[in-house]
Amino acid sequence: MAAKAESSDESGVKLLSGINDQYGGVIVDIIDPIDPASFLSFLTSSIAHWKLEGKKGIWIKLPIQRVNLVEPAVMKGFWYHHAEPTYLMLVNWIPPSPHTLPANASHRVAIGAFLLNQNREVLVVQEKSGKFEGTGVWKFPTGVVDEGEDIYAAAVREVKEETGVDSEFVEVLAFRQSHKSFFEKSDLFFVCMLQALSFDIQKQEQEIEAAQWMPFEEYAAQPFLQNNELLKYTNAICKAKMEGEYSGFSPVATTSSSDEKSYLYLNSSRAPKRESKVDV
Amino acid sequence: MAAKAESSDESGVKLLSGINDQYGGVIVDIIDPIDPASFLSFLTSSIAHWKLEGKKGIWIKLPIQRVNLVEPAVMKGFWYHHAEPTYLMLVNWIPPSPHTLPANASHRVAIGAFLLNQNREVLVVQEKSGKFEGTGVWKFPTGVVDEGEDIYAAAVREVKEETGVDSEFVEVLAFRQSHKSFFEKSDLFFVCMLQALSFDIQKQEQEIEAAQWMPFEEYAAQPFLQNNELLKYTNAICKAKMEGEYSGFSPVATTSSSDEKSYLYLNSSRAPKRESKVDV
Repeated sequence: MAAKAESSDESGVKLLSGINDQYGGVIVDIIDPIDPASFLSFLTSSIAHWKLEGKKGIWIKLPIQRVNLVEPAVMKGFWYHHAEPTYLMLVNWIPPSPHTLPANASHRVAIGAFLLNQNREVLVVQEKSGKFEGTGVWKFPTGVVDEGEDIYAAAVREVKEETGVDSEFVEVLAFRQSHKSFFEKSDLFFVCMLQALSFDIQKQEQEIEAAQWMPFEEYAAQPFLQNNELLKYTNAICKAKMEGEYSGFSPVATTSSSDEKSYLYLNSSRAPKRESKVDV
Repeated sequence: MAAKAESSDESGVKLLSGINDQYGGVIVDIIDPIDPASFLSFLTSSIAHWKLEGKKGIWIKLPIQRVNLVEPAVMKGFWYHHAEPTYLMLVNWIPPSPHTLPANASHRVAIGAFLLNQNREVLVVQEKSGKFEGTGVWKFPTGVVDEGEDIYAAAVREVKEETGVDSEFVEVLAFRQSHKSFFEKSDLFFVCMLQALSFDIQKQEQEIEAAQWMPFEEYAAQPFLQNNELLKYTNAICKAKMEGEYSGFSPVATTSSSDEKSYLYLNSSRAPKRESKVDV
């Protein structure tokens, strides 16, 4: 990204230096310290310069160490686009037309892992914290998909981390979208089926109270699950899957026009002619 | 949320007032102006108070109008959790243990809508901006799922907005996860099938150059699509679906333990016994 915070135009006026993006905008990555008054002055000249150049969206990435530059940027009309622990991204739109900037990320993505051994036993855990703490409820291993991580990889990783069990991804059996999961953000939860490649359990000390293989029927009969419509559906799906009567979506690696590899999750078994609902 | 920015403890020391969350934390919602020096002083006393109370995560929500309080908060050890155009959410963790705060939203969610009429024609558009601008490529209507919006509702809304066509959601046919779609954030793109309830097209002027019903074979034969592995898969799925040989995930309303209604997307037709791949 930008090596220096400023450059000069032809008349010697100091400008913030940035790199052009592919949408007619500029990305300014502030790394070195600048005093707020100088920053305000550079920013004022730069906005005039970008306007002349016909630039559209202007992005300013401020590391948290440059927190003293947030106020001057907002004074010049910038607003917040997104933030991560280490930085704040501000944005401004130069043309008079309504902006066409990309929306911020709106969803957190998580997985639950349905994993059977050869005795029709399912891998279950009790968590040390969270809403199931101290309830005695046995549940599927679950976890949040990291930024930049594939869903199938997150499922395999979480099972390994929580229980020490190696596994191979099979399918996404279903997914649930819910809202206001934290503040105004939404949640996508993918129920994944995995196939165990090892069976010895070594539970993670920090998060997991207990882990075991449990007969599926015993797991599904827990009163807690019987009172939760969502978990009842999930159990019905898992049961249908165990009986070879359900198919979910499996990942296929594809490349898109930008040559980035990404995974498409699709039903790789042809669908049946007859329609019959999953029993709940 | 908090009506006033401050309250007092028993000894009369001024404290920031907040509301307790269900995870042993506190949410402070700053609305009224405070000068930065007073804020720093209140925050220092408040942190000591929260420590005594055994509080864990402390959230401070600062509207963009309170940008002058960002620096004092960071000086007291707060860091950025997330941001939206109108506010910045900062967070701090009081106990000495590693934090268990929820992750920030990591994914943007978008939809593409596959919509047929009774003549096996598919609804397609040409966009005024974006990477297909001026290419003459006909594509499915697409759009971003708004914060708090259900995927099925977003698909119906986007089709209506872009083309004026009323429709009913049928299924998610497949989804693609891709990374670094803007800065470090990831993308989940859901290919949705909808059933048209009206057929007259009234295109949106701002975003759409042209919209029409086009024979599916003509759409699928576009050279652009032939050179894109992802779109070839999508076409194969749509074709299989048209021939009644594919089933995706359809939404079912469920209530979870918190009584919030959310949708579970699942394969509501039983899966076939035989396995055969989608042809590409």
